[in-house]
Amino acid sequence: MPVPTFEDIRLAHDRIRHHVHHTGVLTSSALNEMSLASLYFKCENFQKTGAFKFRGAMNAILSLSDDEARRGVATHSSGNHGAALALAARKRGISCTAVVPRNALRSKIEAMQAYGATVIFCEPDLKSREDGLKAVTDRTGAVFIHPYDNFYVICGQGTAAKELLEEVPGLDLLFVPVGGGGLLSGSLIAAKSLSPSLAVYGCEPAMADDACRSLKAGKIIPSVNPATMADGLLTSLSPLTFEIIRNHVKEILTVSEEEIVAAMKLVWQRMKIIVEASSAVALAAVMANKGLIRNKRAGIILTGGNVNLSNLPFG
Amino acid sequence: MPVPTFEDIRLAHDRIRHHVHHTGVLTSSALNEMSLASLYFKCENFQKTGAFKFRGAMNAILSLSDDEARRGVATHSSGNHGAALALAARKRGISCTAVVPRNALRSKIEAMQAYGATVIFCEPDLKSREDGLKAVTDRTGAVFIHPYDNFYVICGQGTAAKELLEEVPGLDLLFVPVGGGGLLSGSLIAAKSLSPSLAVYGCEPAMADDACRSLKAGKIIPSVNPATMADGLLTSLSPLTFEIIRNHVKEILTVSEEEIVAAMKLVWQRMKIIVEASSAVALAAVMANKGLIRNKRAGIILTGGNVNLSNLPFG
Repeated sequence: MPVPTFEDIRLAHDRIRHHVHHTGVLTSSALNEMSLASLYFKCENFQKTGAFKFRGAMNAILSLSDDEARRGVATHSSGNHGAALALAARKRGISCTAVVPRNALRSKIEAMQAYGATVIFCEPDLKSREDGLKAVTDRTGAVFIHPYDNFYVICGQGTAAKELLEEVPGLDLLFVPVGGGGLLSGSLIAAKSLSPSLAVYGCEPAMADDACRSLKAGKIIPSVNPATMADGLLTSLSPLTFEIIRNHVKEILTVSEEEIVAAMKLVWQRMKIIVEASSAVALAAVMANKGLIRNKRAGIILTGGNVNLSNLPFG
Repeated sequence: MPVPTFEDIRLAHDRIRHHVHHTGVLTSSALNEMSLASLYFKCENFQKTGAFKFRGAMNAILSLSDDEARRGVATHSSGNHGAALALAARKRGISCTAVVPRNALRSKIEAMQAYGATVIFCEPDLKSREDGLKAVTDRTGAVFIHPYDNFYVICGQGTAAKELLEEVPGLDLLFVPVGGGGLLSGSLIAAKSLSPSLAVYGCEPAMADDACRSLKAGKIIPSVNPATMADGLLTSLSPLTFEIIRNHVKEILTVSEEEIVAAMKLVWQRMKIIVEASSAVALAAVMANKGLIRNKRAGIILTGGNVNLSNLPFG
């Protein structure tokens, strides 16, 4: 798979811009005071399906040939990518099948179904997921759209940082959550062209610090039984995202579960917007590294806002 | 007390505009689909202190003479007005005392104190509140800033509708929660000048339907022991707000507690923003009166976003 360039992100943006929300950038004087910095929040929690994932999914769906599109698409996902792909597929009028672990959040499963996906359950392990997906693609010929190890998905995710950097000039740093690395990869490619001096940090839970360990080891260390509440960041880097991140990221910062809850609560209480735990990881990293950002202008990508309102981590 | 005119609201806006947020207007394709209308949400939950109340408080504080200002201000409030007045007073560098019922929400009391108010507790009844306030003003000479029966407060609250109507032309209807009637009064005066054909609806909980009953009776019917979760809408109309509302409102719509929770949940889940129960009353009225809004353009003022995250009404 080729490594995307900024031109590929630009093409993706042209392709998807009439389908995705150009999300707003919010600021908070309270959080600026607390951080002694100027923070700019790119609100992908306001994106369609409630997460940035819709950008990549829409770009992948629109990049299919008519022949491919006729076969429909399939993926494995326990959450936001599945819902995003389902809606993107519906917009093109093609079918979507999602292989979903039995223990996925009910609210996320219902979202996929509400957008018209066929949901097939598997056991919550890699082999069961891959077998389930293979059975689907063998039977239907559906095109597999990987949640992040996919050229078009990465290009789509990069459009969020592109919008932010075009709208807010002169950022010094950018903080991006990292799970499988699709959003971080796209952000790095966008930043390299639009703002070469920008320091881009990946942010991940200490309880799922495979990206941090992979970079240190110089090879992909898979995420094994990560026990973090940031359920969007459980996945491991892929060959493509590892390559991009390794070459361009400033550093991977890790945060504790307590720091994630505290950051999530800050966003809810001070900004009055809803972000999911995975989203709060970037702000958590900012608040844990105040020396890094002092008197600087920092962008933060708020990745999604899909939470189970009946089960919130606030005491 | 004279009845404010649109010119008074314009002056208020000039006075406060460098102190208040010009809050955004959000739309939601999901809620438009569900309501078969085009809804425009004026997001006063993003206002400083988390509620529109800061507009009126700031206008009242800035309208004090230097002599008055030196004496400080006092008010009674169980919530957002107290916090708003405290911050507005702090911005002018003057003292603020709030007389607060013992059973007020702890989070709201803490907010007043965080903004520098002196909090004095009273029993949760009218006499105790008035005695407490009189003791303060007698002792300190502080100027009493009523939460809504105040010319400058009403003018300040009217700036929210002014911004909305200037930004979104061609609205057919406007939905505004009503408690004491300050926001509704200001909105009515703004609408009368900016959009004379606009139908403005007051929205209140059926469990605190004193405004609805007052209009029917042609005189103020006080709110007695209202038992609604919309804790910002417990107060009764005042002579001034009653007069304005009676002359200009299209109708007062009431909604059940279940409708309030459902509307609140819709905003949280679909718009990914945090509104308090009192805020959700206007959307609840919209969803309960779909015939009224079908294929129309409706404005909704989301009044505030101060909630206790440890005690949410979601099952």
